[in-house]
Amino acid sequence: MADAPYKLILLRHGESEWNAKNLFTGWVDVNLTEKGEKEAQRGGELMTAAGLLPDIVHTSVQKRAIRTAQIALEAADRLWIPVTRSWRLNERHYGALQGKDKAQIREEFGEEQFMLWRRSYDTPPPVLEDGAEWSQSDDPRYSMIPSELRPRTECLKDVVIRMLPYWYDSIVPDLLTGRTVLIAAHGNSLRALVKHLDKVSDADIAGLNIPTGIPLSYELDADFRPRNPGGTYLDPEAAKAAIEAVKSQGKK
Amino acid sequence: MADAPYKLILLRHGESEWNAKNLFTGWVDVNLTEKGEKEAQRGGELMTAAGLLPDIVHTSVQKRAIRTAQIALEAADRLWIPVTRSWRLNERHYGALQGKDKAQIREEFGEEQFMLWRRSYDTPPPVLEDGAEWSQSDDPRYSMIPSELRPRTECLKDVVIRMLPYWYDSIVPDLLTGRTVLIAAHGNSLRALVKHLDKVSDADIAGLNIPTGIPLSYELDADFRPRNPGGTYLDPEAAKAAIEAVKSQGKK
Repeated sequence: MADAPYKLILLRHGESEWNAKNLFTGWVDVNLTEKGEKEAQRGGELMTAAGLLPDIVHTSVQKRAIRTAQIALEAADRLWIPVTRSWRLNERHYGALQGKDKAQIREEFGEEQFMLWRRSYDTPPPVLEDGAEWSQSDDPRYSMIPSELRPRTECLKDVVIRMLPYWYDSIVPDLLTGRTVLIAAHGNSLRALVKHLDKVSDADIAGLNIPTGIPLSYELDADFRPRNPGGTYLDPEAAKAAIEAVKSQGKK
Repeated sequence: MADAPYKLILLRHGESEWNAKNLFTGWVDVNLTEKGEKEAQRGGELMTAAGLLPDIVHTSVQKRAIRTAQIALEAADRLWIPVTRSWRLNERHYGALQGKDKAQIREEFGEEQFMLWRRSYDTPPPVLEDGAEWSQSDDPRYSMIPSELRPRTECLKDVVIRMLPYWYDSIVPDLLTGRTVLIAAHGNSLRALVKHLDKVSDADIAGLNIPTGIPLSYELDADFRPRNPGGTYLDPEAAKAAIEAVKSQGKK
């Protein structure tokens, strides 16, 4: 086992086709837009420029995160590193909101309910029934998840609960070998991990946004807690601007 | 363990930048050309059309095979399947010929020596010394291979010897789980595997060429030997034409 500090890089995928259309996406497997591809490319260039190159990568099983990893790693000439994928790194399952227009949902249910579903820690949207439109109940990539375990809606708390076993069982052992680990994932699976790492309270996590495409670097101590609380963005100025922009996005 | 037949798909990467320039490539990590990308895309479309979809993929650690897998799997909507990479699936190490123009080498050493290096089973080209131009001795992707094991030149026999442990230890166990296995690799690492599977003689393997970008499907019996000797190309007409073209390529 290698000694601390352990090096971890988080990378949130760039703009997807449904981000661009302002639809709730969740587990729907949409692709990156051209803008999203460019964000991923820039993520790889930032890692190269920082001399912070991953030795191994973990992704969700969703195309937008997988392709973000591929594009960033190609830009960093690291396509050859080992890769592991898990549904436990997937975006939050948005339940019956998946495929719905965000503005329409806000209109229909009002600002309070809308923000509760989007940002509360423990209020999941209504369940998406198996076989319904935008359900993944027949998707072969989830065929190894027993029905009782497969999400049909999730709040952020649910994401923390299903993500953490992967952190402990798959990522921490990789960190222990001394390898720099890259996680290419989603807004909410990464917020769930950051909540754990930085011990963010249930109340404060609502205000925490992770910008897309900007690698967020952590140095972890022997207990796998940050030596640099909150992490370090490889482009701090761009991260700051993006965080401000996301904050205003949620407002009318 | 699942029962036979076991399903295996071999996919040779499409045209690379150095194929297009007629240079010996070997372990040099060149990218696909646009034509090579299209071949990979077509490979994925052929798998989809045949309803033969991989559940897991193995690649070399070379960009042209990794990207071939990525592009083919994206075309088949299978980006999410598990992937494993190994240097044991790499192209044959071409020794001191790496980076050299094929026509110039034929000119300099004569047709007989040229064909001996290209096609004999057990005559490797001269060694490429560590640190020389086009050597991979400092490439981090090979840093876990002890110096005594790392190839500095290889004949096809050497490729068989270094490839087979990966076949037995990593691919056969995946086949045993009943999953359809895709191997995205190179002309010579796939010839080495086909030689093993079909028990091709040392003499006859010289005449066996595997076309690029056309999935070659095997159904294997309980002893992991082909029920369909020689395999089945998913586009047999295109494969036949490509094999003829490769045969004439080696001639003046």
